[in-house]
Amino acid sequence: MKTPIIIDTDPGIDDVIAITAALFAKELDVKLITTVGGNVGIENTTTNAVNLVNFLGKDTPVARGADQPLLKKLVSAAKVHGESGVGGYHFEAKENRTLLSTKHAVEELRDAILYSNEPITLVPIGPLTNIALLLKTYPEVKSNIKEIVLMGGAAKGGNVTPVAEFNMFVDPHAAKIVFDEQISIVMCGLDVTLQTRISTDDIKEIAGHGKVGEMVSQMLSYYDSPSSTETEMSIHDLSTIFYLTRPELFTLKRATVNVVTEGEASGCTITHYNEEGNVQVGLDVDVEEFRREFIATFMKVYGMLGE
Amino acid sequence: MKTPIIIDTDPGIDDVIAITAALFAKELDVKLITTVGGNVGIENTTTNAVNLVNFLGKDTPVARGADQPLLKKLVSAAKVHGESGVGGYHFEAKENRTLLSTKHAVEELRDAILYSNEPITLVPIGPLTNIALLLKTYPEVKSNIKEIVLMGGAAKGGNVTPVAEFNMFVDPHAAKIVFDEQISIVMCGLDVTLQTRISTDDIKEIAGHGKVGEMVSQMLSYYDSPSSTETEMSIHDLSTIFYLTRPELFTLKRATVNVVTEGEASGCTITHYNEEGNVQVGLDVDVEEFRREFIATFMKVYGMLGE
Amino acid sequence: MKTPIIIDTDPGIDDVIAITAALFAKELDVKLITTVGGNVGIENTTTNAVNLVNFLGKDTPVARGADQPLLKKLVSAAKVHGESGVGGYHFEAKENRTLLSTKHAVEELRDAILYSNEPITLVPIGPLTNIALLLKTYPEVKSNIKEIVLMGGAAKGGNVTPVAEFNMFVDPHAAKIVFDEQISIVMCGLDVTLQTRISTDDIKEIAGHGKVGEMVSQMLSYYDSPSSTETEMSIHDLSTIFYLTRPELFTLKRATVNVVTEGEASGCTITHYNEEGNVQVGLDVDVEEFRREFIATFMKVYGMLGE
Amino acid sequence: MKTPIIIDTDPGIDDVIAITAALFAKELDVKLITTVGGNVGIENTTTNAVNLVNFLGKDTPVARGADQPLLKKLVSAAKVHGESGVGGYHFEAKENRTLLSTKHAVEELRDAILYSNEPITLVPIGPLTNIALLLKTYPEVKSNIKEIVLMGGAAKGGNVTPVAEFNMFVDPHAAKIVFDEQISIVMCGLDVTLQTRISTDDIKEIAGHGKVGEMVSQMLSYYDSPSSTETEMSIHDLSTIFYLTRPELFTLKRATVNVVTEGEASGCTITHYNEEGNVQVGLDVDVEEFRREFIATFMKVYGMLGE
Ligand SMILES: [Ca+2]
Ligand SMILES: [Ca+2]
Ligand SMILES: [Ca+2]
Ligand SMILES: [Ca+2]
Repeated sequence: MKTPIIIDTDPGIDDVIAITAALFAKELDVKLITTVGGNVGIENTTTNAVNLVNFLGKDTPVARGADQPLLKKLVSAAKVHGESGVGGYHFEAKENRTLLSTKHAVEELRDAILYSNEPITLVPIGPLTNIALLLKTYPEVKSNIKEIVLMGGAAKGGNVTPVAEFNMFVDPHAAKIVFDEQISIVMCGLDVTLQTRISTDDIKEIAGHGKVGEMVSQMLSYYDSPSSTETEMSIHDLSTIFYLTRPELFTLKRATVNVVTEGEASGCTITHYNEEGNVQVGLDVDVEEFRREFIATFMKVYGMLGE
Repeated sequence: MKTPIIIDTDPGIDDVIAITAALFAKELDVKLITTVGGNVGIENTTTNAVNLVNFLGKDTPVARGADQPLLKKLVSAAKVHGESGVGGYHFEAKENRTLLSTKHAVEELRDAILYSNEPITLVPIGPLTNIALLLKTYPEVKSNIKEIVLMGGAAKGGNVTPVAEFNMFVDPHAAKIVFDEQISIVMCGLDVTLQTRISTDDIKEIAGHGKVGEMVSQMLSYYDSPSSTETEMSIHDLSTIFYLTRPELFTLKRATVNVVTEGEASGCTITHYNEEGNVQVGLDVDVEEFRREFIATFMKVYGMLGE
Repeated sequence: MKTPIIIDTDPGIDDVIAITAALFAKELDVKLITTVGGNVGIENTTTNAVNLVNFLGKDTPVARGADQPLLKKLVSAAKVHGESGVGGYHFEAKENRTLLSTKHAVEELRDAILYSNEPITLVPIGPLTNIALLLKTYPEVKSNIKEIVLMGGAAKGGNVTPVAEFNMFVDPHAAKIVFDEQISIVMCGLDVTLQTRISTDDIKEIAGHGKVGEMVSQMLSYYDSPSSTETEMSIHDLSTIFYLTRPELFTLKRATVNVVTEGEASGCTITHYNEEGNVQVGLDVDVEEFRREFIATFMKVYGMLGE
Repeated sequence: MKTPIIIDTDPGIDDVIAITAALFAKELDVKLITTVGGNVGIENTTTNAVNLVNFLGKDTPVARGADQPLLKKLVSAAKVHGESGVGGYHFEAKENRTLLSTKHAVEELRDAILYSNEPITLVPIGPLTNIALLLKTYPEVKSNIKEIVLMGGAAKGGNVTPVAEFNMFVDPHAAKIVFDEQISIVMCGLDVTLQTRISTDDIKEIAGHGKVGEMVSQMLSYYDSPSSTETEMSIHDLSTIFYLTRPELFTLKRATVNVVTEGEASGCTITHYNEEGNVQVGLDVDVEEFRREFIATFMKVYGMLGE
């Protein structure tokens, strides 16, 4: 049976790739996509999510969420992802906004979780604002969340600051709320995502293969994250999806994670390893297999779309 | 025309008195009562609100809100208000839960504000958790909020700690969210509420007058706040209602208020006086007139109930 | 017998007045004056201290101390005290630097305390940098300190920020070090110093009386503290000296005082009243008697100088 | 010409090994050893330093410094180093306290630096309390400090907490003071010291060789740091000395380092790489050559002592 998941996202180039991989994964059933301000503002992240689902020919509902972090002002990453969030890429015209819910992401999350027959896996790949609002407003959802598999944080180091990863830095209070709840969390942070580097050669392999291959390769030609080199880049958010489809690639260690909310270390995820911790921190990954999976995923999409 | 208000509350003895005064004030139209964890937990504050409205023969809807503060664990004030929140008082039997909404306080707040023909005055007299969740989830409500008249904070001093008032201390992050929004706020903090002291003699004047007079006097015989003496006590939350019905009793000064969220000064409302500030801080009050108003209010209730 | 005291100071107009009062008080024996950066930089505060002692015809040794606070950059109060620290006042020419020790204030403090036959009373009327360095480098002095009578802090409110008094705000880490030691402290903070207001009429009474009366009146004509009005001003530092000579004027309450060192409440002196506290906080003062004492003091100086 | 250095230390087993290496290094002239509370209290660290110098037949002066950190209470590491600080080791009897200065470490540091013909290299291998007190009390020493080569901090990770190294954690305020001064600093933190692991086989090589080999091997048989395994251990403080004698083994990167002083990240050294930074952070080391140097050092000591 497919694992029912909900993706909370701020697309974002790596978000687009992760969502695409998820929507075509035979192991996953994407029930809902919710958007949040992060890489770019909520207008753009929502438009990108809707456009992507349309472009891929899917009908996954999308719901717009919070624009601003709980207490801080939004610090976006437009430098990495372009003003629109998807580099210079333009999705094919046929705009279909019927996917877009008239309800707020937090309400759609509540309903999708509460009305699901099986426990839902939440996959947040942006700042955790929506998830925090959800857990504080409707704590009853916790009993039907299987686990949270998120991209964010780092046991060691950071990317926006020397000690803070972007998603944690943007809304540290939301992150603290989420990590402090006694929910099972898998944390795909910089410790793994900086290892899972895709090369320009890898991208070339999929570039010629259909409109999705083309989209991915065009967006990645723009993607200018601090961890990119001329020949390699980290597609951070994708780790969450590959963790769900190929968990054996990842080495995890159990911990309690405390998020710093104030001062110069704001957004730092202080990782205390201990066997009772509610967080499984991704520490290692089979990089070669990850790359093969990347290529295989998009070749499979090419086949499925029958272009 | 009556001023449409919504009371967000954690009853609480002084909350009960404030709500009662509001429900019988000819100047006010209480559209909704929402509850929050604070003086006691959400179960009790909600039950108390419903029981009170029933007891008073009103049909104001009540909606249950957040139990726990955003980031901190709830620190209640059961020592002041009793385990149930209303001292040893028991409301008459006929429990009527039909007043209680099946929707969350945050959704009821959104609907009541968005669907109101005239801008709504919010009257939070507990921790600001619900209001913060509302403003972050549904920022569109801001355009139909006239002002927020709240009990909380202090320009100088505190009651839970030397620098923090209870409602701010319980959820300083929510308070910071609310004060940082550019909404017009009237802050009835300790600067005024510690002045507006009611004496045991005042209470005796209303004690014999009907079931409401009896309720008030019984509850206040229990009320054991740190600012009470043997003969006088501050009924903090009542200042918000009297500000709305008798604004001329209060002296206000415009300021910007920054709430401290971390460290030993957590919950401190740092009050920078300036003419562009969005907060009007209550600094003085006509104490004698306040007392007369207290007695007059409950004598009028006695008359209206026709006992 | 005279009480042996050491004044640690950042003159500063009110420092000059306090030092003058101390040097002529029959109850006090000023063993040493040490200087610190505060109202203005260390060069000026040291020059002012030396010039003042010369001007008064005394031979109290002066030792130069720390220029910069422990962790923060110096924020001076040149706006209140003028660039030089003593308004536009110029001391008579004969500069005599022989009073100035070649040793650092911290070493002179150590020696003066350790070699004193009776326990010393420390009177810090500037930021507490020197005192903190002393206590951390030479903790053995503690056994020969009788008490610390300081100007600084506030049980309620502030003057540089809404919650911080100047001396605490300038070096909150030093203040925390001093208050956390288990030394007996008398805190003359804004709670008393804002009460002890001297009027322009009071000043006129001493203005015509000798060179000291002239100096005091000239300096105060410049003094432009935030708590001054056109007709009244607080001479903050003087409270420490009058506490030592006329303790019966002051009402104190025992407390533990925690100094906030970080964030927007930095410099706030959180005052927890309790009978085991090491701090006696000045809360009230006989204002009329304080004014009389002010005039009497400088009339007495006039008489003693025989002009 | 030999490099004149001063070691500020809290011996501590790895301190003992570092001091020994320094005292016999032909490249170094150890002018002074100052002690500080850290691994164990000041009584023990001072006794250990004096005993060690005697034991090695040297006459380097020792001066006792601060026992307690500036603002925090001392958190020692007696679990790692034993109650005495040197495991179960007992130095040969002839106690000679004449090496011990009657002056405080801070004064001896000042004199040794100011009176030196050539600029001094400071080598702090404990908490930075003494160095902070020195720089704040006698800032004039800065002009005759060549550089500070210290053990402490980490660009990534920690050992006492997930983000703080021991020496920084014990006195973060002192660390912040030192790193904020514009002095050239070489930071040998966990990034290198966790790499420079010595094996039990390495230790066996020196164990039979004279009293110093015996001392080192006995102490290390006790040494139980969190980074030790059954067969390998990090002798953290030694990196500073080997950096001075064999700088070519180390790879450094220039940065600005901000020390967190409050909250759960207290002691974290936030490392912002930039070419104008005053800190050179050790990031890599030639581990094999380091091991060879370890063995060669103690074999040379054996030869020099002519046992
Ligand atoms: Ca993302
Ligand atoms: Ca209340
Ligand atoms: Ca002063
Ligand atoms: Ca050490």
